[in-house]
Amino acid sequence: VTTTGSADDGYRFKRRVPFHETDLAGIVHFSWFFRYMEEAEHALWRAAGLSIDRAGAETGWPRVSASFDFKNALFFEDEFEVVVRVATVTRRTIQYAFVVMRGDTTIGTGAMTAACARKQPGLPLQAVDVLPDIVAKLRAAAGQSPS
Amino acid sequence: VTTTGSADDGYRFKRRVPFHETDLAGIVHFSWFFRYMEEAEHALWRAAGLSIDRAGAETGWPRVSASFDFKNALFFEDEFEVVVRVATVTRRTIQYAFVVMRGDTTIGTGAMTAACARKQPGLPLQAVDVLPDIVAKLRAAAGQSPS
Amino acid sequence: VTTTGSADDGYRFKRRVPFHETDLAGIVHFSWFFRYMEEAEHALWRAAGLSIDRAGAETGWPRVSASFDFKNALFFEDEFEVVVRVATVTRRTIQYAFVVMRGDTTIGTGAMTAACARKQPGLPLQAVDVLPDIVAKLRAAAGQSPS
Amino acid sequence: VTTTGSADDGYRFKRRVPFHETDLAGIVHFSWFFRYMEEAEHALWRAAGLSIDRAGAETGWPRVSASFDFKNALFFEDEFEVVVRVATVTRRTIQYAFVVMRGDTTIGTGAMTAACARKQPGLPLQAVDVLPDIVAKLRAAAGQSPS
Repeated sequence: VTTTGSADDGYRFKRRVPFHETDLAGIVHFSWFFRYMEEAEHALWRAAGLSIDRAGAETGWPRVSASFDFKNALFFEDEFEVVVRVATVTRRTIQYAFVVMRGDTTIGTGAMTAACARKQPGLPLQAVDVLPDIVAKLRAAAGQSPS
Repeated sequence: VTTTGSADDGYRFKRRVPFHETDLAGIVHFSWFFRYMEEAEHALWRAAGLSIDRAGAETGWPRVSASFDFKNALFFEDEFEVVVRVATVTRRTIQYAFVVMRGDTTIGTGAMTAACARKQPGLPLQAVDVLPDIVAKLRAAAGQSPS
Repeated sequence: VTTTGSADDGYRFKRRVPFHETDLAGIVHFSWFFRYMEEAEHALWRAAGLSIDRAGAETGWPRVSASFDFKNALFFEDEFEVVVRVATVTRRTIQYAFVVMRGDTTIGTGAMTAACARKQPGLPLQAVDVLPDIVAKLRAAAGQSPS
Repeated sequence: VTTTGSADDGYRFKRRVPFHETDLAGIVHFSWFFRYMEEAEHALWRAAGLSIDRAGAETGWPRVSASFDFKNALFFEDEFEVVVRVATVTRRTIQYAFVVMRGDTTIGTGAMTAACARKQPGLPLQAVDVLPDIVAKLRAAAGQSPS
């Protein structure tokens, strides 16, 4: 089930670049974009009235894959937005799509897939089905159509 | 020259704990508090209409020392404040004092001293005098009395 | 120009998981795998008698894309290896392929593409051709055939 | 109980600076020294045949305070050593002292105090007494006299 969104949808997570995220090339180190994506994902969950992956929670969302294409650099104190949408949902995974923007400049685009897993003390994570209600709430918070 | 502030002064920098700042003990890893202090320092500079330590800037502020005392833990998605004040100013250094608060709970207190240095391509940093105007603006932004 | 390597080739970069790389789920935070890949890439460069991306260097290697597929978790104090090989080389980019292993367990696989760029003070990075000699040295250090 | 060590004692933890630990000033970001100290502390524990702070362990070592004085900068790919010793031990805390060296150059000195705490699921950490045997093993691994 793939959702093709309009150019405008997506939850917009705002962020500023602190000093410690830069590297000796004078730009944000590329590894940070993966953290930006996760921060935006969690902000989307909060916007949907949900929380994710707390210690002690019964359900976790381990990452299955993550990728990012870098178009332009981000610099110290730049203000930027991470636009996040629900992309592909399978029985046991949610894939999110991301665009990082500084004003009208596209900094890069990425994707991240998380699996739904049951956490039980002393046991390995066990894959479980994604609750449809969670997907519906996330889509709504991202301004996407219900399915 | 030491400034003793009232309990209320200080610039308040707000922040939330993202997932990647936690460690396997389930709390924010202690090293992050040093980044929180710097983020608050730079927010104070912006509030004072200044910017700090950009690439290509003629003046930098390398850290001379930093310390933090940990009182309580911070957790995933906690919202907290870093209250920053100008503490001790010497000819060539500014020391900042910090209190990290989550609501009424003190998470910890810290201090950080930065030296004023001239940066010239290909040369080592050279200590230079702190401009009084900068200190005055920082104190004002922190709600502190002028000297 | 794609190189298909044997199962055995690749430079092996050894690493251990420190405490601060774990998150509240008790495992290494997924963002670290992108840093592991870069650390292995740079270790390959050193093994090839080269160095990469120093401040002041005339040539830099900004990342164009990075991706990782997560198979198993890494834990605190785990010892693991990042096996890195030169994958696809185009006129102006080098793509590396990575496998992260803990003993016989595959932790995950990834890829990273870096562009060759000329750095000049005050100017944007400019794409330039990859020197064939660099590619030859990297392949040799990774135990790969010359082309 | 304070231990004054000779200039030579201390466990020596070796490390190299990866790219992602540098900042736009071209040097290792100061926050990393706090992670270096913890990495050296844990290496000392391993050298003593102990492990620290694993998930599920009954005892944890939350940080009480940490400080560092910065003397010289570290740069990309620098090899350096963190020399760690047991400094002051109280009934419920261990303080470690650190010196970071690059060859004969002192990069900085620091201290970190950890409290011994019992971890029980669902309960706050509870301070407990430091086992004398642990201190003896750590001192031995650091080449320090028994008390």
